[in-house]
Amino acid sequence: MMERHDPTAAKARLRLWLRMLAVSRMVEAELRERLRERDSTLPRFDVMAALSRAPDGLKMSALSSVLRVSNGNVTGIVDRLEAEGLAVRLPVEGDRRAMLVRLTPAGEAGFAELAARHEDWVNELLGAVTAAEAEHLIEQLQAVRNRLAERGDRP
Amino acid sequence: MMERHDPTAAKARLRLWLRMLAVSRMVEAELRERLRERDSTLPRFDVMAALSRAPDGLKMSALSSVLRVSNGNVTGIVDRLEAEGLAVRLPVEGDRRAMLVRLTPAGEAGFAELAARHEDWVNELLGAVTAAEAEHLIEQLQAVRNRLAERGDRP
Repeated sequence: MMERHDPTAAKARLRLWLRMLAVSRMVEAELRERLRERDSTLPRFDVMAALSRAPDGLKMSALSSVLRVSNGNVTGIVDRLEAEGLAVRLPVEGDRRAMLVRLTPAGEAGFAELAARHEDWVNELLGAVTAAEAEHLIEQLQAVRNRLAERGDRP
Repeated sequence: MMERHDPTAAKARLRLWLRMLAVSRMVEAELRERLRERDSTLPRFDVMAALSRAPDGLKMSALSSVLRVSNGNVTGIVDRLEAEGLAVRLPVEGDRRAMLVRLTPAGEAGFAELAARHEDWVNELLGAVTAAEAEHLIEQLQAVRNRLAERGDRP
């Protein structure tokens, strides 16, 4: 681990971090703006994405942990999805206080359409990266993530 | 630009984006926590970084644009820095309504120390990336940024 103490490497990692943060924020701002034009938001998109991966529904508590990072108000988002006929709240068998949230067929169709647009936007915004480079970058980021996850496991 | 319409490349770029966003958020959360332990915050760190690059001082309006992305309250941050003797507000010659903000020597020393810790933390958190890989990733991110900046220039 000599390199960890190499000042040139430390400076390169700092520049990498500042660049990664700047690019993430630029892309996120652009996606946010495009979702807004379609009367959606990033937290709402994240909630619908989580629900679309859970055809049997998700408890509100599970949805809250999905949104921990995007800082959304899950109850407000689910209220609106329900009012628009895109999601339903269902009772949980054996747990009278819990509620499951599930997309309706209209919610599934709406999310599929929005997810396709989102994929197109990301493909356009990150178009400067070739497919092979993208795979390479994913591996590098995975290594960073694994190290961060290991840290998180420490007592 | 055939590749822009290649579904495999589109999926790779989407995965790259989701990974980049997740890693950025993990690193940011970790830095935020470590700054908190030192009674600082990311917006405060960003303000001090901008001031440390401007030995002649910065107008409040320039500081506000620095903080546009980190969502900080510039006035509150500068108030606190001033109360702690780390920054001063000075009148601007020829503009009676404007104020310049400048770090004091104590503010410069405090920021230099915190910036060195910050660099160490980033070096540790991104330690899975070699210096050569970091340079390579920076170039890739620069290409993404250039393309985003070109978009922003469009009418």
